[in-house]
Amino acid sequence: MTTATAPAVKESYDALIERSKEAALLGSTCSLLHWDKETYMPPGGAENRANQLALLAGIIHDKCVDPVLGERLSRCEASDLVKDGATVEAVNVRELRRMYDKETKLPKRLVEELVRTSSLSQEAWVTARKESDYGKFLPWLEKLIKLTREKADCWGYDKNPYDALLDEFEPYETCENVSKVFAGLQRELVGLIERIAGAPKRPDKTILIRSYPVERQVSLCRGAAAAVGFDFQSGRIDTVVHPFCSGIGPGDTRITTRYNERFLNESFFGTMHETGHALYDQGLPREHYGTPMGSSVSLAIHESQSRMWENFVGRSRAFWTFFLPETRKAFPEALGSVGLDAFVHAVNTVEPSYIRVEADEATYNLHIVLRFELEQALVSGKLAAKDLPEAWNKRFKELLGIAVPDDRRGCLQDVHWSFGHIGYFATYTLGNLYAAQFFAQARKDLPGLEDSFAKGDFRPLLDWLRRKIHCQGMRLRAGELVREVTDRPLGHADLIAHLKAKFEPLYGL
Amino acid sequence: MTTATAPAVKESYDALIERSKEAALLGSTCSLLHWDKETYMPPGGAENRANQLALLAGIIHDKCVDPVLGERLSRCEASDLVKDGATVEAVNVRELRRMYDKETKLPKRLVEELVRTSSLSQEAWVTARKESDYGKFLPWLEKLIKLTREKADCWGYDKNPYDALLDEFEPYETCENVSKVFAGLQRELVGLIERIAGAPKRPDKTILIRSYPVERQVSLCRGAAAAVGFDFQSGRIDTVVHPFCSGIGPGDTRITTRYNERFLNESFFGTMHETGHALYDQGLPREHYGTPMGSSVSLAIHESQSRMWENFVGRSRAFWTFFLPETRKAFPEALGSVGLDAFVHAVNTVEPSYIRVEADEATYNLHIVLRFELEQALVSGKLAAKDLPEAWNKRFKELLGIAVPDDRRGCLQDVHWSFGHIGYFATYTLGNLYAAQFFAQARKDLPGLEDSFAKGDFRPLLDWLRRKIHCQGMRLRAGELVREVTDRPLGHADLIAHLKAKFEPLYGL
Repeated sequence: MTTATAPAVKESYDALIERSKEAALLGSTCSLLHWDKETYMPPGGAENRANQLALLAGIIHDKCVDPVLGERLSRCEASDLVKDGATVEAVNVRELRRMYDKETKLPKRLVEELVRTSSLSQEAWVTARKESDYGKFLPWLEKLIKLTREKADCWGYDKNPYDALLDEFEPYETCENVSKVFAGLQRELVGLIERIAGAPKRPDKTILIRSYPVERQVSLCRGAAAAVGFDFQSGRIDTVVHPFCSGIGPGDTRITTRYNERFLNESFFGTMHETGHALYDQGLPREHYGTPMGSSVSLAIHESQSRMWENFVGRSRAFWTFFLPETRKAFPEALGSVGLDAFVHAVNTVEPSYIRVEADEATYNLHIVLRFELEQALVSGKLAAKDLPEAWNKRFKELLGIAVPDDRRGCLQDVHWSFGHIGYFATYTLGNLYAAQFFAQARKDLPGLEDSFAKGDFRPLLDWLRRKIHCQGMRLRAGELVREVTDRPLGHADLIAHLKAKFEPLYGL
Repeated sequence: MTTATAPAVKESYDALIERSKEAALLGSTCSLLHWDKETYMPPGGAENRANQLALLAGIIHDKCVDPVLGERLSRCEASDLVKDGATVEAVNVRELRRMYDKETKLPKRLVEELVRTSSLSQEAWVTARKESDYGKFLPWLEKLIKLTREKADCWGYDKNPYDALLDEFEPYETCENVSKVFAGLQRELVGLIERIAGAPKRPDKTILIRSYPVERQVSLCRGAAAAVGFDFQSGRIDTVVHPFCSGIGPGDTRITTRYNERFLNESFFGTMHETGHALYDQGLPREHYGTPMGSSVSLAIHESQSRMWENFVGRSRAFWTFFLPETRKAFPEALGSVGLDAFVHAVNTVEPSYIRVEADEATYNLHIVLRFELEQALVSGKLAAKDLPEAWNKRFKELLGIAVPDDRRGCLQDVHWSFGHIGYFATYTLGNLYAAQFFAQARKDLPGLEDSFAKGDFRPLLDWLRRKIHCQGMRLRAGELVREVTDRPLGHADLIAHLKAKFEPLYGL
């Protein structure tokens, strides 16, 4: 291709950006439709909502696969515009190319078959899980694995088809790298969890399983979100069955949570988690909205923010030094006589359990290691889908030390595979690892950080995250970002150090 | 044009319908974006919301002016498909042609200038009204009238440019017909209102201006909406500053209302009004959703439904025979000792006042007559915009017998003109007239109708409306519908008869 003139390149680039912004606005509209579906839509509106979403998805898809985009990208790529890879233009072109290739490499037939199959799979999965009957999900999982392999082949990969799948959820990440980091983490984690299991000191978990009136949970959660920096002028909190955070667009970030009258953790740490996601969205550079430079880096980096505020801040002794008095005031009957030590230990209970979403900060990662291993075996064909329950149960026992009682609490517990989301789970533990490494660096950069938490001042941490991570958009890939911020590649050391520093004193180890 | 083959016609028709359904789904998405903006959107989301709405409006517009639609319409029109004007196909083609012509006859330049001007006009109007300074709105009104005239010229008309404007809001209606019906109404109404002003019996309005705790208003309004047939599985009620009803789509119709702790009417009759709109939307034929056959006839017919449930049902003695005991139970302090006669008279107070939206069932129509006359004079050029306040005040005194104290409570009170909505106001009184004529017919067709209200049974009326009006979609034009349902063209007799039958005994006339 011959190099285009500078004005022609500029025109191509501007047109790319305009299209990107249009797609973002339509995506933002879909986010609102989804949010409303989970919060306020009357039941009768479901069919119309599905039709709205399908139509918009089609319009977005058409905008994203338009061949003229490919031509514009090539024109920019062949020009001086992208010579310096660190410029706004180069980053936007790099990421728009990535997305364009992802979208265009899949044949329409495959996309449609995936949509149809995953829709039916979800129904089958709901029944299978309810009845703990793996046989009802098996044919669908087999079909989804086959289609997923086809997807990987269309996208292409170096050695491992699983890399192509991972890349959908965590761009530029490789199976080899994740395996290496997870191996180190697993080795140390299994030992730590065993030591905790035999520890002399035990928490009194029942503290959290008392009467916590919902209205007072609502105002406590709002208070906590506001205290750490959530901007209610640019967001809101609502109640749903399955909590999520939706960054509708600049100035509009919506958290959702759920309340359990007999258990404080669900709403409180759920809100802290979603607030972490929300703070990232509220901190993205507004001037680049609708382009890669105004977008979050990846699922794992997004998760690092939610886990940081949930676990590194929200489960810290420093946080509760500040927040327990207020919490006690809200629930005098439940917490009137509970001291700081007992409370902090209770919210940091470590105990192997079956269900990933209910797992504690330490054992959680072993749930992910399990799924990461099994996904690879399923995709490579080393493990047949029909043998999944056996493989799951065996490996679960090895990693967590307890025997899975049934498939409902085993390999049928997660919704992800029924969506055809294979390659997603790793991002959760990657998030924990990134969180630990970022947080360790923040503590170095900001002396007295935890003292500020104890005084209710979270601004130093939030400002640091804003500067180092949020306002960067997609300038750097996830692996580059962690290197730039912490001077090291991603590893398991900081997460292990964090868990030991927290749990050893709590458990008297 | 040569006649196309039957399969080609069928193909064209199907493509027209598909496009119509797509446009409806996108319109339905805009409705949700608007609803969310008024109910739950955080303030920071305003700019993003405006961008979403603008983009979607553009996409809808492009879909609606696509020349291929014109070709398809012509192909259908030249075929046997529309030979019998009463078929689904003929109705859909007739109305899609109407909309296509409306959309395509306006040059893009004019559309954009109207959007820009009305946006700035609204800002100017807000200030002008607040400061009661007509001079601040005058230049914008002049510009809007000029652009509106251009719009009328683009659309075309027989004798009167105002017909083209009226037709935007009330299809197929003419200035001549409205003038004739309004003249009869005005003549009789002025006399009735004068007699009421000098009547021996007076209502005790203060009954309604007492302490009405908001939470109890909320459940009372929900109870009333449910009692008359609003389906909460397919709808909801929320709180806003400026109430409206939004038919988001099949199975999803949303009412909004507002609460005044010291005045029961606002929420109660507001809810009854919006419930009337909602019952129409919930009764449209679902199988034709997204096409004219699944749409409401016109603004006036829609308003006839809201006014019927607000005034003909909600302000009737029969309704309160059923509902006052429940209302008294909700507000024992305010209403414990208030009898049925006193309450019914209080909610039927007639009294000239300055503000249209606060006017009673009788005087309201004179506010409309005033605007209808002045709009025609402004559009024809007989009245210069600079002379509007004087003309308004003079005619207001003649019609309502009271002197306008300032422009804020005079010609600056309504938002409509600042949007460029000239030709809209007539639909409100047309709605009252249609409501009266339909209701008179319903009473003939359904003996004992009011007895059923008194027992809390509104099903006979709702079923009748469903059958006669709601499920018809746009099969008939408004004027044809009233003829088919009541055997007569629209007139003023039934509205006057209704008002006399209600107010003469109440006021001891």
